[in-house]
Amino acid sequence: MSSFSDIDTKAVNTIRTLAADVVAKGMAPVAYVLWTRYMNYNPKDPKCCALQYVLLHLTGYDVSMEDLKSFRQLDSKTPGHPEVDHTPGIEVTTGPLGQGISNAVGLAIAQAHQGAVFNKDGFDLINNKTYVFLGDGCLQEGVASEACSLAGHLQLNNLIAIWDDNRITIDGDTDVSFTEDVEGRFRAYGWDVLHVDAGDTDLDAISGAIAQARDCQTKPTIINLRTTIGYGSLKQGGHDVHGSPLKADDIKQLKEKWGFNPDESFVIPQDVQAVFDKVRDKGEQKERDWDALFKKYQEKYPEDAAELLRRVSGRLPEGWEKHLPTYTPDQPAIASRKLSETVLNAIAPVIPELIGGSADLTGSNLTRWKGAEDFQPPSSGLGSYKGRYIRYGVREHGMVAISNGIAAYGGLIPFDATFLNFVSYAAGAVRLSALSKLRVINIATHDSIGLGEDGPTHQPVETAAWLRATPNMQFWRPADGNETSASYYAAISSAHTPSTLALSRQNLPQLKGSSVDKARKGGYVLEEEDKADITIVSTGSEVSIVVDAAKILREKGLKVRISSLPCFEVFDEQPKEYRLSVLPSGAPIMAVEAYNTLPWYKYAQEAVGLRAWGASAPYQDAYKKFGLTPEGIASNAQKVVDFYKKRGGDIFSPVDTALNYNTELEYRD
Amino acid sequence: MSSFSDIDTKAVNTIRTLAADVVAKGMAPVAYVLWTRYMNYNPKDPKCCALQYVLLHLTGYDVSMEDLKSFRQLDSKTPGHPEVDHTPGIEVTTGPLGQGISNAVGLAIAQAHQGAVFNKDGFDLINNKTYVFLGDGCLQEGVASEACSLAGHLQLNNLIAIWDDNRITIDGDTDVSFTEDVEGRFRAYGWDVLHVDAGDTDLDAISGAIAQARDCQTKPTIINLRTTIGYGSLKQGGHDVHGSPLKADDIKQLKEKWGFNPDESFVIPQDVQAVFDKVRDKGEQKERDWDALFKKYQEKYPEDAAELLRRVSGRLPEGWEKHLPTYTPDQPAIASRKLSETVLNAIAPVIPELIGGSADLTGSNLTRWKGAEDFQPPSSGLGSYKGRYIRYGVREHGMVAISNGIAAYGGLIPFDATFLNFVSYAAGAVRLSALSKLRVINIATHDSIGLGEDGPTHQPVETAAWLRATPNMQFWRPADGNETSASYYAAISSAHTPSTLALSRQNLPQLKGSSVDKARKGGYVLEEEDKADITIVSTGSEVSIVVDAAKILREKGLKVRISSLPCFEVFDEQPKEYRLSVLPSGAPIMAVEAYNTLPWYKYAQEAVGLRAWGASAPYQDAYKKFGLTPEGIASNAQKVVDFYKKRGGDIFSPVDTALNYNTELEYRD
Repeated sequence: MSSFSDIDTKAVNTIRTLAADVVAKGMAPVAYVLWTRYMNYNPKDPKCCALQYVLLHLTGYDVSMEDLKSFRQLDSKTPGHPEVDHTPGIEVTTGPLGQGISNAVGLAIAQAHQGAVFNKDGFDLINNKTYVFLGDGCLQEGVASEACSLAGHLQLNNLIAIWDDNRITIDGDTDVSFTEDVEGRFRAYGWDVLHVDAGDTDLDAISGAIAQARDCQTKPTIINLRTTIGYGSLKQGGHDVHGSPLKADDIKQLKEKWGFNPDESFVIPQDVQAVFDKVRDKGEQKERDWDALFKKYQEKYPEDAAELLRRVSGRLPEGWEKHLPTYTPDQPAIASRKLSETVLNAIAPVIPELIGGSADLTGSNLTRWKGAEDFQPPSSGLGSYKGRYIRYGVREHGMVAISNGIAAYGGLIPFDATFLNFVSYAAGAVRLSALSKLRVINIATHDSIGLGEDGPTHQPVETAAWLRATPNMQFWRPADGNETSASYYAAISSAHTPSTLALSRQNLPQLKGSSVDKARKGGYVLEEEDKADITIVSTGSEVSIVVDAAKILREKGLKVRISSLPCFEVFDEQPKEYRLSVLPSGAPIMAVEAYNTLPWYKYAQEAVGLRAWGASAPYQDAYKKFGLTPEGIASNAQKVVDFYKKRGGDIFSPVDTALNYNTELEYRD
Repeated sequence: MSSFSDIDTKAVNTIRTLAADVVAKGMAPVAYVLWTRYMNYNPKDPKCCALQYVLLHLTGYDVSMEDLKSFRQLDSKTPGHPEVDHTPGIEVTTGPLGQGISNAVGLAIAQAHQGAVFNKDGFDLINNKTYVFLGDGCLQEGVASEACSLAGHLQLNNLIAIWDDNRITIDGDTDVSFTEDVEGRFRAYGWDVLHVDAGDTDLDAISGAIAQARDCQTKPTIINLRTTIGYGSLKQGGHDVHGSPLKADDIKQLKEKWGFNPDESFVIPQDVQAVFDKVRDKGEQKERDWDALFKKYQEKYPEDAAELLRRVSGRLPEGWEKHLPTYTPDQPAIASRKLSETVLNAIAPVIPELIGGSADLTGSNLTRWKGAEDFQPPSSGLGSYKGRYIRYGVREHGMVAISNGIAAYGGLIPFDATFLNFVSYAAGAVRLSALSKLRVINIATHDSIGLGEDGPTHQPVETAAWLRATPNMQFWRPADGNETSASYYAAISSAHTPSTLALSRQNLPQLKGSSVDKARKGGYVLEEEDKADITIVSTGSEVSIVVDAAKILREKGLKVRISSLPCFEVFDEQPKEYRLSVLPSGAPIMAVEAYNTLPWYKYAQEAVGLRAWGASAPYQDAYKKFGLTPEGIASNAQKVVDFYKKRGGDIFSPVDTALNYNTELEYRD
């Protein structure tokens, strides 16, 4: 016998009519079952969970009927795609296809890890399931394939994906491009696969499938829910339902069909609201139960409880930054990827919420700290869910999207790693880290032609321009040990900003004049010179080459100031006077970097870099080919000095602008 | 009975020892069987096919023993990863994981299409198979998943993938992250799956599997070849074989084991060379046979033969450019995505080698021209292999990688389409279009906050900076109909350069002062003004807003020059005098664009754009929020004029530089 009655059907139809009023279509029945029977939440604490504006409204979140009506309007709580910082109850920013399911894998990893760390016998404190809806489009995206393959490997039984199998994408029937056997694919990934044939109507079958998925102990589950797009609409089943609102008369007949007044919009019958109120009450009770449980936990395990509270609050461990190494010029030259490893070895033990790994480049990225345990399913014999080192496999896009999910869960600081060149593979997820204000740290080694023999297919020349043009992204390119420590300081302590740390394969000398404090400003004068003939500004592995170039120039009688600019984003936040002191007027400024020069004209009149793609060669030969040697740089600097002397006239710093389009302070807390 | 004898084993071991001398490991047996028994090629015509330096050398390509010895050295023919323009016989630039298999899908599409168009009864002119080797890492990449799912849908029976199943990636055993059932996954994609258990030694089994795959009529095939990484080495089976050369004593014992002189390097026994010579002779004979067949074809089908020769030679149809529409200011405002559709409707019939499609956004990208037929397997009933419109599904990265393969095949001009924002999903393949000098056209609509309601998750603000910093990529952002035609002119006629066309969702007026010829220079003065107080430079949908802003400023008595800069890459190729005439010294230059402003300081002292992410709203509201209105722009222009008047001193154009890092001419033909 069904456990659902007429009021449930009516509630589903309420969601449907409301959704038609807003614009959304489909998935009402499963959303209803999930929200009313399976998920626990307290809307007063909007961080717990939720997905969709209508259900957020119905269940009492701070999303009003007015908010529903102003869907996709400027500064509304209901933007065209849900954004985590716009709407109470939205957990991750989605919309770009394939990201939601990949974020969900991250949320599930975060739960599994923190459950393993904090739960005790009789204290199942952290035990939520992650539910995710996904469509045919999401399933076609490579990022979803990557994340789902890893989720199967990790045996994440806390992850339940519900596939809206309506056989329609924007181009029409899925027959035109998507005829694979999705269920077979997911079984191959190691998932449990369930089906609901009558996903438009059969609440019992939906509920049964969710219950079965919830109780699966060994695998993630995908439920194939056969649905009809625009169910109830005159256009039901057609691809033209996607992306455009239903016409007025269509909405009318739909409301009539389901016993609603066709002339009213945005209506919730009282008895339906009562269903949701009851669910909300249950959620509040569940929260009280949890609070009580946690109180007992605090008594029995005071240290664990305090640690859990600290992590969830986002407070960093007291004094963590004292563990960051500092360097003096007499210390040996070290590759910044190696300097990064030293930092990780120092801070991983004192920041237990640091969790992450590499896309199959552990030995090159140098990201596995001493004593790290792998995050693996216990049955694998290779680690446990308590482990904090994630083996991502060769899955860069999935990796960063998973990092976003881990960061969104809370209580953890995720990092990931690959070559800088392959951060591009993850571009779709990287922009969402920044847009969603998630503290994700991308450790990006082999950051230039300095990687040498692997050649131009692996040498980023355009990547820095992209990351520097991404709002709320800190792209750091440290020049030595102190700057590397500064970049980690900024990355860890910027709670709402992702960072990408571009690190060298080759050794870099410890610079005279660098310090963690100076570098933390994003830019500083490394070698000051009164009445300089030229300022040379650089980053990362090229700074020490510039130092040598300056020696050549000084031998010729020129006065040279050297500035280091490891992070544009942070430098831009400094007061104009400070920026002008680093990049002053009165002499030409020449930038030097082994990348395409485009971003540099914001700071320098002249730039030396790569006009072209790199080259496969030992790195010294590659640098030489592009003139990035002390001699080549000195020769260009001389040309610059001569040109401006000959031209005459005033030389103003490019930083001395009328319009202040430099600060991104609105993104900071 | 085996069809292989001792000499074959010896030949395999020759490849193995040579490979050990160079650095490569594994896959020698299958490479041998494939090169000697299945592939037809004539090294004198290096465009036919090949994969690996050693086999290129053995089979007589212009890759010498010296070239093998200078592996990964500067300017050698043997860079760290094969590059299509460095080495005779290399078909596509690979290295970045997942690209090769995806390129192969493009090569297979190109063969299927051109075979369908040109082959006749008794004239099986274009009938090659595409063979691709791929490893565990490639199989984990999302781009490969996308491309392989589509290949299954398209039933590409001309595609044969050979999976080097050695269970090892850089991080170690595949058990740490890659435990999915690969064979099950490929069956789900609609592929035929074969296995060879003893892939290190069993030449007969290898040959049998290839023969079976070659003869499969309905599906692509993947052969699971179980191999041992570093077979024969002391480290065989270990992940530390990957990426680092074998030690000298290891190479020695390996040579001894296989009966080679351990003290000699880079040796080819005469009897082994004779095997390859015979194969080469066979290839030359095959080419003569083909030439004879083609001669008969020319006699019987002179027009088809002439057309095939034209396409393969890369000559565009005579007068194609006359079909590009031109516009006058009295014509109505039209969205540039719609202007693009008009171009496609005009040129698709006259450029029959144009082939492409959209990642499930056909109705939004407006890329399907009138009368287009879908490229589909005949059995689908939805089109045929003669069709030129490809339904890519929601697979952006796979799509662009497939475009690269189509372009590399020759005889075709591929385009693909998605929202500009989602070109980022394909970044890994986009950079390879540019590096490989492939004419791929990315049609990128909904190019800014002007897409409106979909919100910041779909609004690119950082994407243009990335594409403009990519060497040999033409990023076009046309402002009206004439500029749209100019962008297509450049994209189609630049045989060795990919293009990305950023096109608006919203309507754009036809500008007074624009023309196809002017726009083809990448930048030009739209409205000239003697002794201007300010030059405002802009692109795309913002140019007409700047025109309105200038009216406001002129009412206030200011003199305003307006320049349009639809393509930095092409503008940078113009002589300095021309560039200075478009962006002159003497008055401040202010750029206006609805993107992050970073790239603009190369051309302007000041920039108005987005400091932040966009917003979900009707597009007019989004523009207003960021001050991108005539009033907002005029107000900023006034500030700029006042600032420079107050500061006094000389104002030099940013284009007037000492160093010429502007030209990328080395990439042009």
